[in-house]
Amino acid sequence: MHLTKTLPFDKKKIDEIIKIHPTPFHVYDEKGIRDNAKRLTEAFSWAPGFREYFAVKANPNPYIVKVMREEGFGADCSSLPELMLAEKAGIKGEMIMLTSNDTPVSEFEYAKKLGAILNLDDITHIDFVDSNIGLPEVISFRYNPGPLKGGNAIIGVPEEAKYGLTRDQLFDAYKIVKQRGVKRFGLHTMIASNELNADYFVDTAEILFDLVCDLSKTIGIDFEFVNLGGGFGIPYRPGDKPLDLEYISEKIHEAYKEKIESRGLKPLRICMESGRLMTGPYGFLVTTAIHKKEIYKDYIGVDACMADLMRPALYGAYHHITVLGKENENQIKRYDVTGSLCENNDKFAIDRMLPVIERGDILVMHDTGAHGYAMGFNYNGKLRSAEFLLKEDGSVQKIRRAETVDDYFATLDFSGM
Amino acid sequence: MHLTKTLPFDKKKIDEIIKIHPTPFHVYDEKGIRDNAKRLTEAFSWAPGFREYFAVKANPNPYIVKVMREEGFGADCSSLPELMLAEKAGIKGEMIMLTSNDTPVSEFEYAKKLGAILNLDDITHIDFVDSNIGLPEVISFRYNPGPLKGGNAIIGVPEEAKYGLTRDQLFDAYKIVKQRGVKRFGLHTMIASNELNADYFVDTAEILFDLVCDLSKTIGIDFEFVNLGGGFGIPYRPGDKPLDLEYISEKIHEAYKEKIESRGLKPLRICMESGRLMTGPYGFLVTTAIHKKEIYKDYIGVDACMADLMRPALYGAYHHITVLGKENENQIKRYDVTGSLCENNDKFAIDRMLPVIERGDILVMHDTGAHGYAMGFNYNGKLRSAEFLLKEDGSVQKIRRAETVDDYFATLDFSGM
Repeated sequence: MHLTKTLPFDKKKIDEIIKIHPTPFHVYDEKGIRDNAKRLTEAFSWAPGFREYFAVKANPNPYIVKVMREEGFGADCSSLPELMLAEKAGIKGEMIMLTSNDTPVSEFEYAKKLGAILNLDDITHIDFVDSNIGLPEVISFRYNPGPLKGGNAIIGVPEEAKYGLTRDQLFDAYKIVKQRGVKRFGLHTMIASNELNADYFVDTAEILFDLVCDLSKTIGIDFEFVNLGGGFGIPYRPGDKPLDLEYISEKIHEAYKEKIESRGLKPLRICMESGRLMTGPYGFLVTTAIHKKEIYKDYIGVDACMADLMRPALYGAYHHITVLGKENENQIKRYDVTGSLCENNDKFAIDRMLPVIERGDILVMHDTGAHGYAMGFNYNGKLRSAEFLLKEDGSVQKIRRAETVDDYFATLDFSGM
Repeated sequence: MHLTKTLPFDKKKIDEIIKIHPTPFHVYDEKGIRDNAKRLTEAFSWAPGFREYFAVKANPNPYIVKVMREEGFGADCSSLPELMLAEKAGIKGEMIMLTSNDTPVSEFEYAKKLGAILNLDDITHIDFVDSNIGLPEVISFRYNPGPLKGGNAIIGVPEEAKYGLTRDQLFDAYKIVKQRGVKRFGLHTMIASNELNADYFVDTAEILFDLVCDLSKTIGIDFEFVNLGGGFGIPYRPGDKPLDLEYISEKIHEAYKEKIESRGLKPLRICMESGRLMTGPYGFLVTTAIHKKEIYKDYIGVDACMADLMRPALYGAYHHITVLGKENENQIKRYDVTGSLCENNDKFAIDRMLPVIERGDILVMHDTGAHGYAMGFNYNGKLRSAEFLLKEDGSVQKIRRAETVDDYFATLDFSGM
């Protein structure tokens, strides 16, 4: 069977953009993002005050973050510029959560100014926050289960992870902040990345629910929310099965009834901080084949490079490729699809079967909506691309211009030379 | 034995900089760069017209590139911004070599305007250059030996590499460009990266000398230069032995006499395009410990992150760390030294034995002068740091300002929101 992935646009739509802007560029599918967001909200409609904090890191474009806000989502931030970006996208107060590690005072200050929820990564941050800006009314802590839970392959084992507090530290931490007048409490963990095993998330919820129960009883506090973190994977390969959100929700609901409701605990808001799940499948890197090369292997060189999409070069990650206008042609040629960066790992695909490609063909890399543009660099003098939003009404909006050489030189003052 | 690495500055000098600029920042040691450059030049003084083309990719700061120019070196460029940077550093004409792959017309055009040497990566680039901008008087080709030579561990096997022409293609290529009026010829290869085995480079030179001989005789042309590429490693770990440049030079000289001189071939310029070797050991990332954390392991959080130095996170690369002012203290504590990026691999060191570190201590990461700042990104809203040049006279010059939030938002137009 011939496995493939479909696109939310056709060649005509891309040609429209190319008329006003050369490749390479990213395109995001607003309808796809919104439909998926609604599906998540619907799946968790049983959960009191369910809240997704979009992980801004995945796609730090304010126009995308604004779509998230319009879908009722908040922002998960972990740096000062991300806090500012959430603010610019109109996300306010406790709809912003700062989940930062090794945090400078400036970040805590700005988060406090915004009224964001502080999700503290370390027990020493209690004193750090208290002495520098004062403890806020609501505090969350990040839990690192250490040897109590195996991590997934991507994020590694929790006990090797720099994040969070140990279980023992959590008991101390909530006691201390309670004594210092904190009134409202949350609990957070994040121990997977790009995970496609649904039960992994159910398991995480169960661990947090039990912990909430233990902490509530021991310390005598009520929890207002748990943040299950993100880590929801997406099907990069045509054969991958997407996560069954409804199944996950149902199983978490069961756990909630058993571990929260039936124990008489107060209603607990379920929060998440997905990035990849929310935008990953709805972004596309559009690039032109500018070079054909035949040496020991056959190469197609494109005008995008790893500065636009690092995942294949970094992780050997698979991104599906569609050759526009050749969707129905047989995939009879084996190619390495390469970018021009002077690194041999600047390859979007290795030994990929594709239709015969000619110079000028438009290639679309799928699933670049998360950790795509976001991870771009300027190594080798490469400039990062523009971003377009394909809106629900079919129109196209430029939501970021391409970098120029002036941007590349912006931090240099040549007058001293 | 207690292995360590020395610094070209003391705490007082760094404190001087910190008075005018907060950490983190990079510092480059001009004297170290110049002394090393002179050593390379001296080692190859036997070679007629020896020329190092500094690989701009390694450290794309025009003030550094200018130091290279002053030491008589040229620039190896592989993108339009890198060509412009070489130009701004005052490097002219054939002192610039464009070694680019999957090259757009704009790069060839700009290189031609500068009078740079085109080092073509593919046989199809002959027609591509000819039809778009016309062939220049001098042409070089990049050789990919494929299965004829094993690559080193870092760059991978040549037959899997996207670069260069096969041996058969080279014979066709030089014939074609000769017929089309090209008068002067060069040959290039680059098949290693960060290699510390001296014989590897001797071996490469022998292969190129033999190939020059075969090509000269078969096609009836004289070669003006060979470019042995870069790939010279540096001793990142205190115990690593640096490359013996004098040994490499002597062995290459022997090969030159045997394979070029004694065969009656015309004098051949030896070129190189080192980056790491020229600046790597003379750059330092200076950062402050802002956080101490004890969970399953002990962590020191610093104010730099992988946006400033990616190699440890990307490759697990070792960078030596000196705690300023504690150079003589016993290394009795085992730490992970982490940055604040929301990626667990944002660690500068794992299980590193160091003196006891307190908040406020200044940590210096060694050997960040190549592929350090250059590879930085803005993932997670992280901003890239400033760069300082510690001049030979002991003064300090800021050669790049730190990025600001305005830089981070520069490609966004919020008016459409």
